[in-house]
Amino acid sequence: MRELRSAGIVAVGSELLTAFRQDTNSLFLAGRLNDLGIGVRAKAVVGDHRGDLAAVIREAMARADVVITTGGLGPTDDDLTREVVADLLGLPMEERPEILAVIQARFERRRVPMPAINRRQAQVPRGARALANPNGTAPGLWIETGDQLVVLLPGPPRELQPMFDTYVAPGLEAAAGGRRLRRRVVKVHGRSESQVEETAYPIYSQIGDEAVPVETTILATPGQIELHLTAAGTDVPLIDARLDDGSRRLVAALGDVVFSDDGRSLEKVAGDALKARGWRVAAAESCTGGLLLGRLTDVPGSSTWVAGGVVAYANEVKIDQLGVPRDVLDAHGAVSEPVALAMAHGVRDRLGADVGVAITGIAGPDGGTETKPVGTVVIAVTGPKTVVKTLWFPGDRSMVRAFSVASAIDLVRRVSLDPPA
Amino acid sequence: MRELRSAGIVAVGSELLTAFRQDTNSLFLAGRLNDLGIGVRAKAVVGDHRGDLAAVIREAMARADVVITTGGLGPTDDDLTREVVADLLGLPMEERPEILAVIQARFERRRVPMPAINRRQAQVPRGARALANPNGTAPGLWIETGDQLVVLLPGPPRELQPMFDTYVAPGLEAAAGGRRLRRRVVKVHGRSESQVEETAYPIYSQIGDEAVPVETTILATPGQIELHLTAAGTDVPLIDARLDDGSRRLVAALGDVVFSDDGRSLEKVAGDALKARGWRVAAAESCTGGLLLGRLTDVPGSSTWVAGGVVAYANEVKIDQLGVPRDVLDAHGAVSEPVALAMAHGVRDRLGADVGVAITGIAGPDGGTETKPVGTVVIAVTGPKTVVKTLWFPGDRSMVRAFSVASAIDLVRRVSLDPPA
Repeated sequence: MRELRSAGIVAVGSELLTAFRQDTNSLFLAGRLNDLGIGVRAKAVVGDHRGDLAAVIREAMARADVVITTGGLGPTDDDLTREVVADLLGLPMEERPEILAVIQARFERRRVPMPAINRRQAQVPRGARALANPNGTAPGLWIETGDQLVVLLPGPPRELQPMFDTYVAPGLEAAAGGRRLRRRVVKVHGRSESQVEETAYPIYSQIGDEAVPVETTILATPGQIELHLTAAGTDVPLIDARLDDGSRRLVAALGDVVFSDDGRSLEKVAGDALKARGWRVAAAESCTGGLLLGRLTDVPGSSTWVAGGVVAYANEVKIDQLGVPRDVLDAHGAVSEPVALAMAHGVRDRLGADVGVAITGIAGPDGGTETKPVGTVVIAVTGPKTVVKTLWFPGDRSMVRAFSVASAIDLVRRVSLDPPA
Repeated sequence: MRELRSAGIVAVGSELLTAFRQDTNSLFLAGRLNDLGIGVRAKAVVGDHRGDLAAVIREAMARADVVITTGGLGPTDDDLTREVVADLLGLPMEERPEILAVIQARFERRRVPMPAINRRQAQVPRGARALANPNGTAPGLWIETGDQLVVLLPGPPRELQPMFDTYVAPGLEAAAGGRRLRRRVVKVHGRSESQVEETAYPIYSQIGDEAVPVETTILATPGQIELHLTAAGTDVPLIDARLDDGSRRLVAALGDVVFSDDGRSLEKVAGDALKARGWRVAAAESCTGGLLLGRLTDVPGSSTWVAGGVVAYANEVKIDQLGVPRDVLDAHGAVSEPVALAMAHGVRDRLGADVGVAITGIAGPDGGTETKPVGTVVIAVTGPKTVVKTLWFPGDRSMVRAFSVASAIDLVRRVSLDPPA
């Protein structure tokens, strides 16, 4: 087999050609393949249609060293991947008694007779290596003929992912000749993509030009900019040293807007900072309506550093549950710095937490005014010190809410990392 | 041009071949194309590499009546889509002064000189029709030659989507000869995919077999099963009548587990039921940590029917903020029906709402016990009547949380739709 440098991914299934189902396996596979130093040349999605499927797999094989298909390994007439690949490679199909026995045993364990159609899943191209599937009936298949490597995986992620890691990755690793792609991710909050680019450009054009070139890409999501540094080769310690150096230089240039260079999420970093001090946070949310607390409590183990919070959508809730004075609300309006501060203090004191964070704003589509347009958000944090900020975020309701949550978590991070007042 | 029945979609951009960026435009395009009665034969993702790009677009053109590309229309050397398509169709490139004028005017409005490289965006294949882009510099292109139709759209969704709806949809509609695909969606909570399938199968095998065949597909997400009914043809009133009939029969067979047959989300249905009664809901969340409130307040205008809520992660917050008696917590544990009921009553009374809903459970990965394994969740709703349920959900932390939120919203829906006690 030739040395593996490039891969093609083909997702099979007519449902993946509608507006309602997305192929997500290819993201998992792209990540794993990249880690093995194998780049993805192209991805394709094709329906359960023999002619289209054959054409798409043939094209993928013409372009890439290894083709990985996902889906179409079920027992029904719609499941064509096995046969189409056998045809393309000129291999006859044969029934494997040992595969059939595994499928039969699976049904026996569940005390259900094996439907006759499942017998099809034991029919495989001659010479194929079957990959065990503890989470389903369809075995995966590893097929090498001459210069071609084709790997057939089942569609459900909980079947595909362990099968890839157990069987496919080691096989590809052996074939890839020790080449690896390594990655560092520097994550930033509080700068725009172009601001990050401006600061980072001189560094990444330089590290991209050295003997071990480090490639940098920028990814932006609401409230977060990521710089991905990658380098490939066989000398892993050398590559890691180059990446560490590049990452260190970017962190130094960007300063404290960098919240993570070790893969941790913003909420994990904030949580770790709170935990290190033995502090708990409480949140009061208006326009984000629970999303801030939802994101903080997404972190496993967050119960040690999240006390809880109050979603104060209605003004009476702000008054009764958070102790925001009615005259402050009347004088300044719900979206104002005095109200945000009162909310932060109120939730902290009432829930007996160490840090209080509050968000109040206008997420839209309605509710904007001349002086406080949609996207106006006030965030307050109180702990060893107190900070309040009025911000404006672009985009629709969900974007404004996402930006607000990220900004609030970042303020919690900053207050928790700061030396106490 | 031939009658349009099938489409191919090609997303262009090396970043779409990594683990970190997903092509989402193709979901939007598939939905819009299906609505026009045009099926998607295949989708492809290809990097900014001339040879691969040419091969992938050529293959798509061989298979489909119309090919839509997204991305690769920017001003840099990496942006190759225009030139590659011109090559494939044998069209020379030419600079269009009227396109250049629009791009220059855009920069002038922002008081920025136009970078020289942006001139490339005014170079288009001869005979191409430019599609105006109010949200960016890259015009779209509509290129018809002989039997081929190729449409080039920019990658950013906020540029692509209005351009499709304004220019591409009407053009395709004219070419599609009045054929339409229509859709009804029946949404179910509280049944598994196989239970829904068992009930629905006799109906959809029948409606699939009539003179105007209605096709049914099932889509499952945590806490929601969707039945999509589609039919295509030129006699839209007849198709709509068949779909209405099919949808009615499914709703009748499935009963009150159907929460929507008009496209509304579960939270919108619950909110509309609350609003119709002039009620407001308040929520107390433990393991879902704000996600229930976050999802309810995702609905624009939800401030009229959401009072707010309390995220009571810590037991002291359950006691102090919700009035859960300490001896009830001690006797039954935080994940118990008495505690869920006390939380629901507490949040309703303290926030002055009409309906109170509470979730307490073990989302994992830690915290499970022999008698209350990970996935155990108790949900209580109190309003005109009071309901409490102990449920068990499969999957990881995020799945358990998503199932819990959907179940709680469905209980709010049921209590709000019921005749008052």
